[in-house]
Amino acid sequence: MKIALLGTGMMGYPMAKRLCEAGHEVHVWNRTRAKAEGLAAHGATVHDEARDAVRNVEFVITMLEHGPIVEQVLFGAGVAQAMNPGTVVIDMSSIKPAEAREHAERLGGMGITHLDAPVSGGTLGAEAGTLAIMAGGKATTFERAKPVFAPLGRATLVGPSGAGQLAKLANQMIVGITIGAVAEALLLCEKGGADPAKVKEAITGGFADSRILQVHGQRMVERDFAPRGRMTVQLKDMRNALDTAAGLGFTAPITGLLEQLYADGVANGFSDLDQAGLFAELARRNGMK
Amino acid sequence: MKIALLGTGMMGYPMAKRLCEAGHEVHVWNRTRAKAEGLAAHGATVHDEARDAVRNVEFVITMLEHGPIVEQVLFGAGVAQAMNPGTVVIDMSSIKPAEAREHAERLGGMGITHLDAPVSGGTLGAEAGTLAIMAGGKATTFERAKPVFAPLGRATLVGPSGAGQLAKLANQMIVGITIGAVAEALLLCEKGGADPAKVKEAITGGFADSRILQVHGQRMVERDFAPRGRMTVQLKDMRNALDTAAGLGFTAPITGLLEQLYADGVANGFSDLDQAGLFAELARRNGMK
Repeated sequence: MKIALLGTGMMGYPMAKRLCEAGHEVHVWNRTRAKAEGLAAHGATVHDEARDAVRNVEFVITMLEHGPIVEQVLFGAGVAQAMNPGTVVIDMSSIKPAEAREHAERLGGMGITHLDAPVSGGTLGAEAGTLAIMAGGKATTFERAKPVFAPLGRATLVGPSGAGQLAKLANQMIVGITIGAVAEALLLCEKGGADPAKVKEAITGGFADSRILQVHGQRMVERDFAPRGRMTVQLKDMRNALDTAAGLGFTAPITGLLEQLYADGVANGFSDLDQAGLFAELARRNGMK
Repeated sequence: MKIALLGTGMMGYPMAKRLCEAGHEVHVWNRTRAKAEGLAAHGATVHDEARDAVRNVEFVITMLEHGPIVEQVLFGAGVAQAMNPGTVVIDMSSIKPAEAREHAERLGGMGITHLDAPVSGGTLGAEAGTLAIMAGGKATTFERAKPVFAPLGRATLVGPSGAGQLAKLANQMIVGITIGAVAEALLLCEKGGADPAKVKEAITGGFADSRILQVHGQRMVERDFAPRGRMTVQLKDMRNALDTAAGLGFTAPITGLLEQLYADGVANGFSDLDQAGLFAELARRNGMK
């Protein structure tokens, strides 16, 4: 199939590469063209203008930083106008659910279909084609897009337009809160004279076990807070979740508390740590290291 | 080896059975003798008095409801006095770390060694011999006890006396908070029009994945709150954690919030639900079902 991919950053680049390797005809564009050029060697066509990349393709994937940038790229310079009617825009960026619904409506008015399909799994998942893809939109569109998703990861349709972004927020809420749970529990153990590394080992495999315990819990035990996902990004995620909750008239007290704790961490010098650095903030509050 | 096991309830009974099957000489006692009698068929000797069960054994396992009952059984009716010096008491009940340390000291004064070794894994884990055993005490005692632990599950020494109980509290804290994270996130999705069952499926395998998401998240999706672990027990665990934290001068804000939420759930008619019933309480707060 003919696919355009707009935004070949940390995530978009390896995704475009996988689409090329799967045999698709891939057209790429990136604001800084130099970051896209390596994809030519994999068979992609590199364009100077986004509106040229999207001409005559069946699918347009956007993988950009946040909602306003997605809006600017799609609607700012004649890009949507350059798409054929019937084109499917798959926005794999993580943006607010309300923004995704608005983009879907605007595109719908131009005869273009939209799926929101944010991902979890990071650059490693993008490279390996093992992303968790959370899709919102129409079932018929989702079915059509399956060959596009296949080389990228495992896609699940979770509801109508905007629902994919909601699922991504849910994912980030659970991640942010579980990091807090593990940090608070391991610090209490340390304060009471138990060895946190041994406690982590002892509770592995039971009901307290999680990806967070294994990955971020290990970072806490080793005090290794070199950033993979930063505290500031986790804070932004918690705030997006709270904004979305407020817009729906939904109270999210646990997310609210964690937003405060991540904010305290950012305010106390831990902004550039890994998100597991919430451990450092909870330690600081308790006069521990 | 000669082992006494005091308290053949939901957990103690299958544990005693496994010790018999492993070839140990097992002496059992239970306050309600009838609940112990089935173990005779597996080769155990059933005693009327705890002090008779513990005579001339190398290890005494206690598996009782809480700290004051452990104290009453060990020190109340000449039981500790009936043990040979050098006997090892392994308290596998879940009690407060401070109580465990006190029991260890009192027994130490009588020449008896103590390990606290609470477990996670429930009756299924007890029957299958797959309990997670969190031990506190001396390394030499832990080594001696390994053949006793082997048929019951995987034992890890996490620190000195009381540290096993601290690890168990950490386990319960993480469980209680993670249930809250999953409940709040799935409810937000539902409020926003996404399908919680599909969201759970979509985020499975990513960083938000956990035993709680799989087990308790599924109960939430199915609104199946038949009690396995009750709300009241989860509330008790959160309170024990907060009491222990306070005693150590440690602030645990996330556990504190969850204690309030479980208490609200218990106050609003959900006391006999499964602990995953926190979902019902968060739904109630948001005018949802």
